[in-house]
Amino acid sequence: MGLFTKDIKNMDDLFVHTLRDIYYAENQIVKALPDMIEQAGDPALRQGFESHLAETKGQVRRLDEVFRLLGKEPSGVDCPAIDGIIDETEDVTGEVDDPRVLDAALIAAAQAVEHYEITRYGTLIAWAKQLGRSDCAALFQQNLDEEKATDKKLTTLAESNINRKAA
Amino acid sequence: MGLFTKDIKNMDDLFVHTLRDIYYAENQIVKALPDMIEQAGDPALRQGFESHLAETKGQVRRLDEVFRLLGKEPSGVDCPAIDGIIDETEDVTGEVDDPRVLDAALIAAAQAVEHYEITRYGTLIAWAKQLGRSDCAALFQQNLDEEKATDKKLTTLAESNINRKAA
Repeated sequence: MGLFTKDIKNMDDLFVHTLRDIYYAENQIVKALPDMIEQAGDPALRQGFESHLAETKGQVRRLDEVFRLLGKEPSGVDCPAIDGIIDETEDVTGEVDDPRVLDAALIAAAQAVEHYEITRYGTLIAWAKQLGRSDCAALFQQNLDEEKATDKKLTTLAESNINRKAA
Repeated sequence: MGLFTKDIKNMDDLFVHTLRDIYYAENQIVKALPDMIEQAGDPALRQGFESHLAETKGQVRRLDEVFRLLGKEPSGVDCPAIDGIIDETEDVTGEVDDPRVLDAALIAAAQAVEHYEITRYGTLIAWAKQLGRSDCAALFQQNLDEEKATDKKLTTLAESNINRKAA
């Protein structure tokens, strides 16, 4: 970030900045998921988090490929949004003892993460198309489709017996 | 937050905690929107933010009503997630000079805010139903419908000429 100059001069700069933001976010999610897997009590939820960890690592590899297509080194920028979402997850789950209530809190936290990714990929796809980078848009689209599918699975879990057992 | 005890003992506690989280978030959005209105260059975007500010104040009133139905005083809890999303908005827009690039950044930021609200209301509706509070679920549903409509309008603006002009 420039102290005296504005660093984002055009749409290309804003696009790369946002790519770096989601790159940082995906890498933070890779770091946060093992704790969530450990905390999850319901076997279906734990397994869902495990699959999503593997999937997230694949998403990072797709972003590496986007950087390569753009001729840029893969690197992240601080993303206070995902840091805040993860901090909030830790704050809330730290206050819960009952394992079934904890599962409900973990699902809600994971859905907040998914929705952050969904909005960022939606934005990146729109910008990539406007900048004539359909190659990058196609890779973002694959990540977006996975995030939406994960969010949907989490909704099913939230509405299923996990939460009913906790109520 | 308890230093030695866990404060969220059951689903009712988690429900009220998450209600307080979105109450804080909506109130922070009421504070953040005037700056976004001032920064928006495109008249349609500015007008969209102005309508959303009025709408958000109505959403806070609906949450006041939920607190009343539950027999609780309306109050917020710190929500690092929305604080992070708003901080990130200020970081990014502070780096942009070109008014058309700024509009694109503002739309992306507003969509991140909407998606945070969409995920929280989705969670609150599921829990309200499980806890037998369809009265609260109906109020959350009205807020959710408004957030989804706003997100859709922002997508249309993002895909329309605002971003194309900036590219």
